[in-house]
Amino acid sequence: MKLTVDALPDLSSGAVFLATGGGGDPYVAFLATQKVLAEHGPAELIAVEDLDDDAFVAAVGGVGAPTVSLELLPSIDDPGIALEAFESHIGRKLDAIVSFEIGGGNSLIPLIAAAGRGIPVVDGDGMGRALPEAQMMTYPIAGIPSTPAVALDYAGNMATFSTDTTATYERHIRNLAQAMGGMITTVEHPMSGKQLKSSIVPGTISFSIEIGRILRERRGNAHRILAPLREVFSRSLYGELCHIYTGKVVDHSSAIVGGYDIGEAVIEPFHGVGPNLRLNIKNEFLLATINDQIVASVPDLITVLDYETSTPINAERLRYGQRVTVVGVGCPDYYRSARALAVVAPRCFGFDCDFVPLDELAAHHQPLI
Amino acid sequence: MKLTVDALPDLSSGAVFLATGGGGDPYVAFLATQKVLAEHGPAELIAVEDLDDDAFVAAVGGVGAPTVSLELLPSIDDPGIALEAFESHIGRKLDAIVSFEIGGGNSLIPLIAAAGRGIPVVDGDGMGRALPEAQMMTYPIAGIPSTPAVALDYAGNMATFSTDTTATYERHIRNLAQAMGGMITTVEHPMSGKQLKSSIVPGTISFSIEIGRILRERRGNAHRILAPLREVFSRSLYGELCHIYTGKVVDHSSAIVGGYDIGEAVIEPFHGVGPNLRLNIKNEFLLATINDQIVASVPDLITVLDYETSTPINAERLRYGQRVTVVGVGCPDYYRSARALAVVAPRCFGFDCDFVPLDELAAHHQPLI
Repeated sequence: MKLTVDALPDLSSGAVFLATGGGGDPYVAFLATQKVLAEHGPAELIAVEDLDDDAFVAAVGGVGAPTVSLELLPSIDDPGIALEAFESHIGRKLDAIVSFEIGGGNSLIPLIAAAGRGIPVVDGDGMGRALPEAQMMTYPIAGIPSTPAVALDYAGNMATFSTDTTATYERHIRNLAQAMGGMITTVEHPMSGKQLKSSIVPGTISFSIEIGRILRERRGNAHRILAPLREVFSRSLYGELCHIYTGKVVDHSSAIVGGYDIGEAVIEPFHGVGPNLRLNIKNEFLLATINDQIVASVPDLITVLDYETSTPINAERLRYGQRVTVVGVGCPDYYRSARALAVVAPRCFGFDCDFVPLDELAAHHQPLI
Repeated sequence: MKLTVDALPDLSSGAVFLATGGGGDPYVAFLATQKVLAEHGPAELIAVEDLDDDAFVAAVGGVGAPTVSLELLPSIDDPGIALEAFESHIGRKLDAIVSFEIGGGNSLIPLIAAAGRGIPVVDGDGMGRALPEAQMMTYPIAGIPSTPAVALDYAGNMATFSTDTTATYERHIRNLAQAMGGMITTVEHPMSGKQLKSSIVPGTISFSIEIGRILRERRGNAHRILAPLREVFSRSLYGELCHIYTGKVVDHSSAIVGGYDIGEAVIEPFHGVGPNLRLNIKNEFLLATINDQIVASVPDLITVLDYETSTPINAERLRYGQRVTVVGVGCPDYYRSARALAVVAPRCFGFDCDFVPLDELAAHHQPLI
């Protein structure tokens, strides 16, 4: 399938929906992708089944605190430079590229790299959403080493990594991302087509386009878009979509701590009647609570939509006074395995609670509208 | 010249003298060097003049907070592994090795690497002392790029670096050293024999052995060793040695901040009469003040000797109650150039004062004994 410039608006808004607040605002990456596709022609999007088992693939994307990318804008050249540096470091050409996460800018950066080089992008990603740390990707959960990896900063400084575990890789790359200005481009998780088939969350790029199309065609009040969204999710590898809350943002804090965006948002009902919703943020929306009761938690998806237009809002774009609708989506089954929950359950983020799937929680929870 | 096991005790105690408190306690590195030389035969120490102009040289050593190396002991294998990784990264074999700094463990680590590989070590170093940051070395001051560089941690994790400036390299390597456990081995500043000739502080390994010999032969009260030390320094590329203070350590603080040892020590006269001496530490002893008046400052050398034995004491070994004699030594002329002072003057460490050479200060300062 050819991915043309026309598909980019839907892809990027759908990817912000799936990003659950993280992945970085895609606007500048969108402009860059537009330019690259206009110059080099459409990107080739292939299904993972169409990849040779012995094809050589790596994941490309941005690593850092999403707020940084609002000021340190992503460069059109960096994905290509990082790719070349990676190939020269490892001494082998890549046959295809895949995304870390179908989240915001990180859904587009692989397209910039691939289209510039004339190699395909695999339809899918390593998270099915966005998550803040490398070891939370499906690739390392499936046992694929993260390194050799290459990191490139805005000024052309470069580093390579070779680590024993992905947790170590995450610590090293995060510290370097901080030293390199807060947001870098990395090429990592080199793997075979066979390894990718065993670990990818498949089809998420085309699924983002589908979500984006609904967001565009049904643009308007968030409550009216829930039905068509629910319908499209019911046909996907994700769980059910449910309405969590509607209200206005009354508190929002964000700080860059340890190279991540760490924050909290509080949303109260439009007319001030009823309990507030609290969102905990580490790059992504991780935990939603009402009266200290969990109503949705990572690895399930928590997405914030603008109430008037249904536009999904990245965590770093959340502002006091925004009127929003919060929805939850069950994560792909992959993330409900013990092996995945060992690295993505709420406790992995320091929350003192176990993961309870959204469908079990939703049974006890009445949407407040 | 063959550097045998017999030379190591003098080399390491002399190197602690020149380390001005930093460079890392050399004891474990000493044991490792002893073992390597016993296995592989003596290391070859060559004068920089005997190096071919087109020889390929790099600097090898430990980077981190010296206190860490008291618990995370240096490994006998790491210098060799780092060397091999560097050569494979850069695709070229090294002809010789040189030290970052003639300071503590960092005077011995190059010997471990070189003797294990059967290549020579160049007599000299990139500081003539120890200093806490990479851009303070004579190599980058002379314009030699720090990268490509390789870093290796205690667990075998590896990274490579390519940076635009040495200040950037320092930021990256320091952040990674923190992420890698606080103390790592690096191979950096690849250069030609010609470049090394233009930048090395020459002869400091053999000079350390000379200092060490005096410390051994004249072991005893620190005041009685000052005359022979003064004599040997007067024949060296260093400035004059002068006595700064004698007393006991009454305050000592140390914290690992930003990957460095940051601390302060206060020394008072033996009988409590007269003003105290204050030492400011960033890995090394950087500033000595009496009543807020500077009596010695970086880049001049400030060294603390045990009062009873004249053994030089590393900053991380300073303890409450130690009876010590503090001496100052004028730095090599190299560090008095405007270009060098731009990166090593007291202001580069956040002290609000200009560098005044020790000989000018000494004129106003009466030793307190």
